[in-house]
Amino acid sequence: MEMPNDVKAVLIDLAGVLHTGDEALAGAVPALKRLRGAGLVLRFLTNTTRTPGSVLFTKLCRMGFELSAGEIQTAALAARTVVRERGLRPHWMVHPNIAGEMGPDAAEPDVVVLGDMGEHFSYAGLNRAFRLLMQGCPLIAMARNRYFMESDGLALDMGAFVAGLEYSAGVRAEIVGKPAPAFFAAALAELGVTADQAVLIGDDLSDDIGGAQAAGIAGILLRTGKFRPGDDASPDIRPALTADDFAAAVDRLVG
Amino acid sequence: MEMPNDVKAVLIDLAGVLHTGDEALAGAVPALKRLRGAGLVLRFLTNTTRTPGSVLFTKLCRMGFELSAGEIQTAALAARTVVRERGLRPHWMVHPNIAGEMGPDAAEPDVVVLGDMGEHFSYAGLNRAFRLLMQGCPLIAMARNRYFMESDGLALDMGAFVAGLEYSAGVRAEIVGKPAPAFFAAALAELGVTADQAVLIGDDLSDDIGGAQAAGIAGILLRTGKFRPGDDASPDIRPALTADDFAAAVDRLVG
Repeated sequence: MEMPNDVKAVLIDLAGVLHTGDEALAGAVPALKRLRGAGLVLRFLTNTTRTPGSVLFTKLCRMGFELSAGEIQTAALAARTVVRERGLRPHWMVHPNIAGEMGPDAAEPDVVVLGDMGEHFSYAGLNRAFRLLMQGCPLIAMARNRYFMESDGLALDMGAFVAGLEYSAGVRAEIVGKPAPAFFAAALAELGVTADQAVLIGDDLSDDIGGAQAAGIAGILLRTGKFRPGDDASPDIRPALTADDFAAAVDRLVG
Repeated sequence: MEMPNDVKAVLIDLAGVLHTGDEALAGAVPALKRLRGAGLVLRFLTNTTRTPGSVLFTKLCRMGFELSAGEIQTAALAARTVVRERGLRPHWMVHPNIAGEMGPDAAEPDVVVLGDMGEHFSYAGLNRAFRLLMQGCPLIAMARNRYFMESDGLALDMGAFVAGLEYSAGVRAEIVGKPAPAFFAAALAELGVTADQAVLIGDDLSDDIGGAQAAGIAGILLRTGKFRPGDDASPDIRPALTADDFAAAVDRLVG
């Protein structure tokens, strides 16, 4: 895709773009300030579901980023919305950190909703979910990311557990976070812009750039976070731009 | 495939065929006795890797089955053989029950060897394996089974974790148990028969019957264990015969 001529809104991935673990990436704090100063509207889109949005917000503020809590759109809240709108009875498989935000488990669940449980993934929990899937419950997954950049190196993301359950139960998950077109569309609607007025900045080729591309949004791929050489040479997913880091991407957007 | 005219050897899956959990399936004990009495040579082929062959042997004896320990061929021992023959330095991801049988972990592993860890699967362990795969270690998996029949219902098998690691690391595992052609070929070689002199009896359409079919061996699919309606109507995998249980299969083989 090509960069739009008149960018009004910027959708920004968090981990690997603005920060890694608890550390802001070099130059990211002032770059965000410049972007905001140029009058662009912003939305932070994250598939991180080990942490509630409120905690992410506090963490980002502590690193020096200027943002409001309402600007953060999480895959976990997208899942909660889907469950409520469809009147589903969820069996939540989520990290204890976000369990309260999601709500109680239904007594007789009719859907399995999977988030990133990190170290709380267990055989017993996965087997419980597997049995519900074999009984005909559909699988909703907050994300399908393969891995992310942790402070000590690449870390296995929840996509492994989605793929595993899909394989064993012979089902296909519905993803509600990135790269679901509805997730991007919700952000555009809240910002009051069309796809060709927005760009996305991310470090994940398939879920950030590919997802944005499918929603008609130009993507800027960063060489930070989980980026690995070759990510910018995919035959199917074409970033509108590849930049060394968030600051370099902002330079291109607001000069 | 068609049933051979002159069956000399029978390859027999264990869980879901002879027993479920610690219970022999109805009629299986006398049926095995009849099969042996008819002069057929036997091999028990199992992808179960939560339990060493010696313990499986004791368990089967206690249920009343007549067999010798040397007749049991396990995916775990196949993995150990592959590692030794190729001079690999393994990072073993296996159930504590079989860790001693497999041997020590290499200090600087050049391969990840995965078994069914059951409740011992952990995020930390999977992440360790994932990182080795991302550094270029190949993945050897003992099996890729989707699920098996446990005494309290269908249970998630190790295939889920193989599929998950494959997805996140972007690799493809080499399977050394069923349905690997080499696993069946090893059994035929030990028994001194050719593929068209053997049949396999199993409850797993893809790994038992499909695997045997790929090795040129006719498969008898049982309606016990993990069998689910529709398994006998696959477009790709054609059992030579479908039988209600092990005793019915033996009836067909030895009258």
